[in-house]
Amino acid sequence: MIGGRLHGTDWIGHTHRDELLFAQDSGDFKPATFNVLDAQYPRVDSNSRVQIRFKALDATKVRMNFWSGPKADMEKQADGFWTFITLPIALHYYTVIVDGAEVSDPGSTAYFGGSKWASAVEVPEAGVTYYLAQDVPHGQVREICYHSNVTGTWRHAMVYTPPAYDTQPKQRYPVLYLQHGGGEDESGWTRQGNANLILDNLIASSKAKPMIIVMANGYARRAGQLAPDLTGKPFGSPEMRKAIEDMMSAFEDDMTQALIPFIDSTFRTIPDRDDRAMAGLSDGRHADLHVTFDHLELFSYIGGFSGAANVFAAGNDKLDAKTAFNGAMADPDAFAKRVHLLWVGVGTDEPERMKQGIERLHAALDQGNIGHVFYESPGTNYEWQTWRRDLNDFAPRLFRHL
Amino acid sequence: MIGGRLHGTDWIGHTHRDELLFAQDSGDFKPATFNVLDAQYPRVDSNSRVQIRFKALDATKVRMNFWSGPKADMEKQADGFWTFITLPIALHYYTVIVDGAEVSDPGSTAYFGGSKWASAVEVPEAGVTYYLAQDVPHGQVREICYHSNVTGTWRHAMVYTPPAYDTQPKQRYPVLYLQHGGGEDESGWTRQGNANLILDNLIASSKAKPMIIVMANGYARRAGQLAPDLTGKPFGSPEMRKAIEDMMSAFEDDMTQALIPFIDSTFRTIPDRDDRAMAGLSDGRHADLHVTFDHLELFSYIGGFSGAANVFAAGNDKLDAKTAFNGAMADPDAFAKRVHLLWVGVGTDEPERMKQGIERLHAALDQGNIGHVFYESPGTNYEWQTWRRDLNDFAPRLFRHL
Repeated sequence: MIGGRLHGTDWIGHTHRDELLFAQDSGDFKPATFNVLDAQYPRVDSNSRVQIRFKALDATKVRMNFWSGPKADMEKQADGFWTFITLPIALHYYTVIVDGAEVSDPGSTAYFGGSKWASAVEVPEAGVTYYLAQDVPHGQVREICYHSNVTGTWRHAMVYTPPAYDTQPKQRYPVLYLQHGGGEDESGWTRQGNANLILDNLIASSKAKPMIIVMANGYARRAGQLAPDLTGKPFGSPEMRKAIEDMMSAFEDDMTQALIPFIDSTFRTIPDRDDRAMAGLSDGRHADLHVTFDHLELFSYIGGFSGAANVFAAGNDKLDAKTAFNGAMADPDAFAKRVHLLWVGVGTDEPERMKQGIERLHAALDQGNIGHVFYESPGTNYEWQTWRRDLNDFAPRLFRHL
Repeated sequence: MIGGRLHGTDWIGHTHRDELLFAQDSGDFKPATFNVLDAQYPRVDSNSRVQIRFKALDATKVRMNFWSGPKADMEKQADGFWTFITLPIALHYYTVIVDGAEVSDPGSTAYFGGSKWASAVEVPEAGVTYYLAQDVPHGQVREICYHSNVTGTWRHAMVYTPPAYDTQPKQRYPVLYLQHGGGEDESGWTRQGNANLILDNLIASSKAKPMIIVMANGYARRAGQLAPDLTGKPFGSPEMRKAIEDMMSAFEDDMTQALIPFIDSTFRTIPDRDDRAMAGLSDGRHADLHVTFDHLELFSYIGGFSGAANVFAAGNDKLDAKTAFNGAMADPDAFAKRVHLLWVGVGTDEPERMKQGIERLHAALDQGNIGHVFYESPGTNYEWQTWRRDLNDFAPRLFRHL
């Protein structure tokens, strides 16, 4: 087995124990790749069944809470453990609800998703290795901090440098700014998404140009701005909309006024718009499309992974490419010359409202004669398997303008 | 307020909201620095009181479980939340036990400690900033992976590079190998310990030489070796001792045969023993003293932070410096010439058996005429405040042999 994780005992390992378990079990359940150290649960079998086992000796009710799946009761066993077997696909965030307390599973590595440190279980796609650690040269993932005059704070970001970055000190690289989704943070693209491994593999096979990837924290608040009190304000309320708009606006300024200058002065980048891309995932943040369309002087490659439609269609079902984003796409020929790539993607198993949003966007771009790539990830939902595939399709198309 | 965290929304922030809370509260409770996004609990006041609030609507019993403190019942409030106030000091890992299920607090950032992703609350030392992010040049923390022929796997490590590393491409640096404790992993020294911030501050004030720090994962298993089945084997049993010895031996070979050559070929190090140090914390791993005394051809600076005594005194109360470690210290003069620094430290509030272990070691070294630094951290326990202070005292003494 080739494994691939950033955190844990071994990157690639457990081969022999896996084989042993395979032989011992009536099924072929194996500890999931995201487990802590030698934790035996959660387990996954080759039929994509997940078996979860959770200790709650005195609880009267324990429920599974999958982000992208069912809330379902676990069954109490005679030994005080509770178990659950299901058939989800892909990478699933989950929590466990123990007598009304929503908590994480101590057997799983913790990942920041849904605005909390949740558990996760990965049901791998059989035979697929593009996002796993392989025997190829590996880049580095760097934690950096930069001071932002916009927020008045030191801010944290992650930077992927390609394998040869340190050994070829004269070489300069294009940069992809790659944003997490709502409720995640700057650690998501490497911890959950394996973006570094995807690029390692693409670069090793010459499918993508070597590039730097910058993963910023999408939450920003202007210096002196108080945290809004959203107590009792429902999702989608005017107060919450205002809070999101404020945060997006602060993030846009932080990225363009603080982060990009810092990256260009700290790393060996090619600091021009032809060599700068931005993409992001989820309908939670939208930041990538806002930032890029507002700043076409900075970016020439644009990607929207799932949920990008909400940006265009917020408040209305129809989108007119001619007038959207202050008319950035009013002249299709000029836009095509200026923007080397506009890429939007969606998983075919995403919820209807998300799929429809992207399909409306796709249609509107066609109607407006705006050249773009429309990518559908077959059989995946609104989760990291879709976004990994998105990156795997998107990255090879970058920085090909010459 | 100057804050300092590696993960979260802002590195330094919340100033204004903090002031608001200060004004509103009868006490001066503020959200703890390790909280998730805008989570209001846990809270800490200036008297080092910690207030924890946990939602468990239908639970009948909820207990706090501090690693280094009490297991204590929380009190159920009318709204279904459970609260607890206590007076711990320093950085505390904790979990919550909900009707027999040991779980993490969703309000806290998750940290890997006690072999699980636990919660943590930091009670800061008043007026102390040496381990916080300040307005000084910052280094980077890099995730790297290297292939180990010892384990037969790709392994993950963290590397701190000092602020000028990228801007002065001709400069080479000495290296400190810095190990986590038992039940933690390679993320501990930066996530919990703020090692990068401590070095940023020491370097900015010219108290420490610029250096690279490598933080490896201390768990290793030889290629082809199965995970031992320790079910039902108590702590300290022969089976567990054997498992730990096997792991330490594999780690020693991994570090000396795979990691150090990788670091020296990947980073601009000064690849000789005069410019290589190793230190580690906790009685869980011991790896640093084993590796260094077995490989004095590789290391000339040695640090043991808490619990190092167990290495020397395992199985016996007395240590003879002359015979310990295959006689590495048999000739004090030769040892003093060969080893530029032997440093051991302990927190004065550590449990008796840990303090006594270090004191025995200290006495044995004195008796054997082995020059060493003995550091006592006043008023701190067996936790990260002690280990941060250790590093802050240890690092300035490194690489001064010239």
